[in-house]
Amino acid sequence: MPLSQPYLLFLGDAPDALAAKVAQGIRDWRPEASVGQFRLPGCKADMGLPDMTIAEAAAAGARTLVIGVANRGGLIPEAWKPALVEALTAGMDVAAGLHNLLRDEPDLAAAAAAGGRTLHDVRVPVLHYPIADGKPRPGKRLLAVGTDCSCGKMYTALALEKTMRGRGMKADFRATGQTGILITGDGVPLDAVVADFMAGAIEAVTPANDAGHWDLIEGQGSLFHASYSGVTLALIHGGQPDALVLCHEPTRSHLRGLPHYKVPSLDELRPLALQLARIVNPDCRVIGCAINTAALTEAQAAAYLAETEARLALPCIDPFRHGAERLVDAL
Amino acid sequence: MPLSQPYLLFLGDAPDALAAKVAQGIRDWRPEASVGQFRLPGCKADMGLPDMTIAEAAAAGARTLVIGVANRGGLIPEAWKPALVEALTAGMDVAAGLHNLLRDEPDLAAAAAAGGRTLHDVRVPVLHYPIADGKPRPGKRLLAVGTDCSCGKMYTALALEKTMRGRGMKADFRATGQTGILITGDGVPLDAVVADFMAGAIEAVTPANDAGHWDLIEGQGSLFHASYSGVTLALIHGGQPDALVLCHEPTRSHLRGLPHYKVPSLDELRPLALQLARIVNPDCRVIGCAINTAALTEAQAAAYLAETEARLALPCIDPFRHGAERLVDAL
Repeated sequence: MPLSQPYLLFLGDAPDALAAKVAQGIRDWRPEASVGQFRLPGCKADMGLPDMTIAEAAAAGARTLVIGVANRGGLIPEAWKPALVEALTAGMDVAAGLHNLLRDEPDLAAAAAAGGRTLHDVRVPVLHYPIADGKPRPGKRLLAVGTDCSCGKMYTALALEKTMRGRGMKADFRATGQTGILITGDGVPLDAVVADFMAGAIEAVTPANDAGHWDLIEGQGSLFHASYSGVTLALIHGGQPDALVLCHEPTRSHLRGLPHYKVPSLDELRPLALQLARIVNPDCRVIGCAINTAALTEAQAAAYLAETEARLALPCIDPFRHGAERLVDAL
Repeated sequence: MPLSQPYLLFLGDAPDALAAKVAQGIRDWRPEASVGQFRLPGCKADMGLPDMTIAEAAAAGARTLVIGVANRGGLIPEAWKPALVEALTAGMDVAAGLHNLLRDEPDLAAAAAAGGRTLHDVRVPVLHYPIADGKPRPGKRLLAVGTDCSCGKMYTALALEKTMRGRGMKADFRATGQTGILITGDGVPLDAVVADFMAGAIEAVTPANDAGHWDLIEGQGSLFHASYSGVTLALIHGGQPDALVLCHEPTRSHLRGLPHYKVPSLDELRPLALQLARIVNPDCRVIGCAINTAALTEAQAAAYLAETEARLALPCIDPFRHGAERLVDAL
């Protein structure tokens, strides 16, 4: 059930730009998807889109109001409700990836039912997925794997999609987390899928395709992260990738949320990820590294990338700073 | 919420002994747990326990009727219902691991509510598990890992528990699947846990313990099985094992349910499982192999075990044929 586009981006009363990072992701990667933004008094975020009332957005053709702002604890504040109810009444669906679900708010559920609209809680799977069958399927797939969580895997896959489409290649980003789903309107919230069906869910969102088509699969977690490694392995075995990109943030001292575990090196990740991927696809190869150098100066980043590239004998780039061209070349 | 013991084993109208393998597991591994068996006309299974009516079992102190028989498609036949309702009315809980849930049967739900009894659907998790924190914890843990699904991992862990307890060691089997939960009355149905909480669920069922205590963790799936490998890795990283036992069925031509994948060798499993386990426990070691030789003659089994033991330089035994003594020696 993909989200209907175009969107109205709901920024609410975002206290700063960072709180609106879902909206920013939509703006960065699907700039054509939104007709405008809706802001409440005090909002400190701005996507540079036309500010619209709900009525104006409906008149401009908006089909889904996307909550592009995170709130403390994932709650849905009462201050947001009038706009959300108005949107539902005006014929829009509402989509969110918050911890607290839209469907659990009686006023929103009632307004959606009355108007025949859909509340999309993208944190929760909407389909029943099959158990993976591990069979080879046509079409090519690339998976971003990381030394840690939150080190740039989604961004890397989106940058690859943009570059490949720019070159006229057939390529689709495949979202496996809530932000990716809101950005592209479709995908699977893998962390909320029941264990037995994880790999099957990934097979379902990366189905058989044209021989020259590439699925660019958003990675999750890390093989080295005790909390989420099982999710990562299900992605590798369900995705059956032909190509891996290794993602890394070089300044982090420990794994995210696990202060007693240090971040592994790319040299440790590379053979382990490749060995596991080759269980399901013997032809899989590592094509390069995507380094998140946001915490480094331009000179530091250049030095780190050059050193890593020489050591691993692989293209190493920061897709945000330098684009994904060299990774696409490596395909 | 552990199951209350003692049990009445419900064998229903089992068409053969194999259909009653849950009951057989309880009989084999917890012989003291059951006061009797209940059979319907035509039942072809027999646990060698006293046949009892529901009233007799209640008088003998039975606290939970355990459905020890599987039915085609996991359904709950109408022919079973009168006995189940009578048990609930007589003060027993009812437990099952069937695909179709007891709680979804209106007559059973009504009888349980009226009598204040519990319906235990052990296929479904009953707790909300935390996200794993990966911290070291006191107590020792052993995990059975396999080259494939259904190759003897549960049996191996139960045999180790029996041998260790027989030697006066502190040891607890930790169930991670429905049959193991019904046998021991407690555990986690890992395949039904939501992805983000898999490793945390395993941490929860193998908590901090006495320094000399061993948890013997039932394994699931296989690192080489595309459908379930993520579940296996969550077990390795949540269980944080000090010791691994490698389980294998030597006559199988392909992975269970995946005819296009051959079964890996113990030589392939050993380094991969150990490398992944050492991410969370650098002191982990492989202590031996448990080979399911049911399909081999005694002479074939002896030859296979001797050859494997010489090749891997590890104790290799069939715990069913020869007991688990040599694996416990290796600890």
